[in-house]
Amino acid sequence: MSKYYVLDVDRVFDYIQKELNYFDHDADVECNEIGDGNLNLVFRVVDKKHGKSIIVKQSLPYVRCVGEEWPLNINRAEIENRILKIEYNLTNGLVPRVYKFDPVMYATLMEDLSDHVIMRRGLMELNQYPRFIDQITDFMVKTLLMTSDIVMDHQEKKAYLKDFINPELCDITEALVYTEPFYNAERNKIDDFLIEFMENNVWNDKELKLEVAKLKFDFMTNAQALLHGDLHTGSIFVKEDSTKVIDPEFAFYGPMAYDIGALIANLVMNYISTDARIENRERCDVHNEYLLNTMRDVIDLFKEKFLRLFDEVVTDEMAKTPGFKEWYLDNVIIDTAGVTGCEMIRRTVGLAHVQDLDDIPDIDKQAQAKRTNVFMAKDFIMERKVIKTGQDFVDMVKRYYK
Amino acid sequence: MSKYYVLDVDRVFDYIQKELNYFDHDADVECNEIGDGNLNLVFRVVDKKHGKSIIVKQSLPYVRCVGEEWPLNINRAEIENRILKIEYNLTNGLVPRVYKFDPVMYATLMEDLSDHVIMRRGLMELNQYPRFIDQITDFMVKTLLMTSDIVMDHQEKKAYLKDFINPELCDITEALVYTEPFYNAERNKIDDFLIEFMENNVWNDKELKLEVAKLKFDFMTNAQALLHGDLHTGSIFVKEDSTKVIDPEFAFYGPMAYDIGALIANLVMNYISTDARIENRERCDVHNEYLLNTMRDVIDLFKEKFLRLFDEVVTDEMAKTPGFKEWYLDNVIIDTAGVTGCEMIRRTVGLAHVQDLDDIPDIDKQAQAKRTNVFMAKDFIMERKVIKTGQDFVDMVKRYYK
Repeated sequence: MSKYYVLDVDRVFDYIQKELNYFDHDADVECNEIGDGNLNLVFRVVDKKHGKSIIVKQSLPYVRCVGEEWPLNINRAEIENRILKIEYNLTNGLVPRVYKFDPVMYATLMEDLSDHVIMRRGLMELNQYPRFIDQITDFMVKTLLMTSDIVMDHQEKKAYLKDFINPELCDITEALVYTEPFYNAERNKIDDFLIEFMENNVWNDKELKLEVAKLKFDFMTNAQALLHGDLHTGSIFVKEDSTKVIDPEFAFYGPMAYDIGALIANLVMNYISTDARIENRERCDVHNEYLLNTMRDVIDLFKEKFLRLFDEVVTDEMAKTPGFKEWYLDNVIIDTAGVTGCEMIRRTVGLAHVQDLDDIPDIDKQAQAKRTNVFMAKDFIMERKVIKTGQDFVDMVKRYYK
Repeated sequence: MSKYYVLDVDRVFDYIQKELNYFDHDADVECNEIGDGNLNLVFRVVDKKHGKSIIVKQSLPYVRCVGEEWPLNINRAEIENRILKIEYNLTNGLVPRVYKFDPVMYATLMEDLSDHVIMRRGLMELNQYPRFIDQITDFMVKTLLMTSDIVMDHQEKKAYLKDFINPELCDITEALVYTEPFYNAERNKIDDFLIEFMENNVWNDKELKLEVAKLKFDFMTNAQALLHGDLHTGSIFVKEDSTKVIDPEFAFYGPMAYDIGALIANLVMNYISTDARIENRERCDVHNEYLLNTMRDVIDLFKEKFLRLFDEVVTDEMAKTPGFKEWYLDNVIIDTAGVTGCEMIRRTVGLAHVQDLDDIPDIDKQAQAKRTNVFMAKDFIMERKVIKTGQDFVDMVKRYYK
């Protein structure tokens, strides 16, 4: 019987051939470890002669960016494999195709998307992606609505709920997004120039913490839809005409707002980053106008598609009651604003930052950008009950950039 | 290997002796099938010579009150066995003690509580139970608060959530409480004199159905606490100084309000029943005064104990934020009023009625009582956002009985 071992660039080709016999006998192979996530090894193996390539993603039994002292159950790879198949079918291929999953090695052999770039990187280089709004709203509406009690047989939904109970990965989110950024926690990574600011504006703001506590309990108890669970711009591959969502290992049944809010927050932070990084004001303005339009249209098109698809696919008798879908969607968007704020704060002072903010070269501008980020985040959280349209999200950003 | 077979009075004694060797060799045994629930066989076996007795509860693979055409997974007996042990430990014995669970026969051998009576029966005989308020609020606060994310380690809570996913029994509640009573469904049992009334006042009331739809989705998605799941007065054994909660096979992670509301609704229906059944006005008034005090004190003492225990047991850092526990509890009570209304309607026109209403001998008074019941239920649902104290619940009843 084979056993789990940690793959490396020297062994991954033989492993692929054993599992899948993917490459030709005369392949001219190059292997690289390209993982930049926090939890896994990712190998890209290319046959330069025949132009074939493949990705192997292997789970490590600990949190990679911290080390072996933070162990993590590797069966999250099974969850990722299961949800990739579900998402692939629901979205007609807006996630990578899985060729094979190996439950012994906790390794997934899947489609290579190296012709795409990580969206965070692409946005930092001021690129635009004309198909993104349409494709990401398709992804969100289909994965979220179709896995909810609105549509699924309620007993089958409960079987999914059971399959995707994901205690360790949820625990990470509960700690790193909804708890530790709101006090001076040991694992936080806080720039010295922000400590006093955080104390004054976040850690001692009891009204803010109360609203975050409400959002945290919604995250922990609201088994609304099968989420991606980590839908920031680092989990999205893009190119001119294509969007592919990757890394769904945080998947679980939670509030729809958590996926949408993670995405919106990372668009907002890219806006704040661009303003502080790009000296050429014209290039900055063009990109940030693009970002505002993107966040507005993502929200509005999500709502439009949600309401349209709802009528086609609703099965629950009571959900058909007039007014229900609008009430339901309104609450999703309100909570999206709340999640947006929580994600923005945790990416500024929590354990896992974003390059958008950390890579602002001028330290004064970086400090200012991070403070603005926290202030805006607070507004998103505290005023979320009146944030209901794409324009409401745009207006919140514009409040700080007149 | 032994196999599942349906127990009967002739075989249950031998079965008990094989499993537990419970009775003495010279026992003078009497066996009766005493189940009056909808889903199971319940045998009481008494040794009259030595004064020993025991209960054997066996799950049937179909809904008993409907017949074999409604099959039901018998592993609900496992869920009942697991939750009885948890509730027994949390409440210091406010549920029957389990001696043994047999996973082959889906049978639970447990403490005989025949010195108690079913509370519904006791209330219909106008009896009072002086320890009930204190004991049932203990039961509810401890089982609900202690199994929530406020207290439990979040990863352990998710393990419980997984263990208690209960698709078939939840499906029954979703259909019979939250869906079918709100249209002219085939399985409804509706008195002829109520059909037109229901059409005019419930089935065509879109605002009401919208609020019920919201409550239904809360039931389906809000994994707040490990519920009993069927906490009406037919699931409670009482005597002068003792309260024992039985039949938790509907257990699952759901909204706390579902347990509290089921209980309150059945107290309200007993009030309405008493007014229509008991000709002696003095006896009627004494009993109904007792019922109003009971529902008021159940709500208020639940709230008081909840807030007090919260401070002692809270572990979640964010839940410690000032104002959180009051916000959390307020929402539980608001939703309790909503559940109260849904339970009252379904017990009037749904598949499973209550004797309190059906046993009103004067048919005109019965019709009037049932109409009052539905009107009051609607008020509980539609006005739930301002129903926050025990007195608010009492005032709602008094609105119809000046």
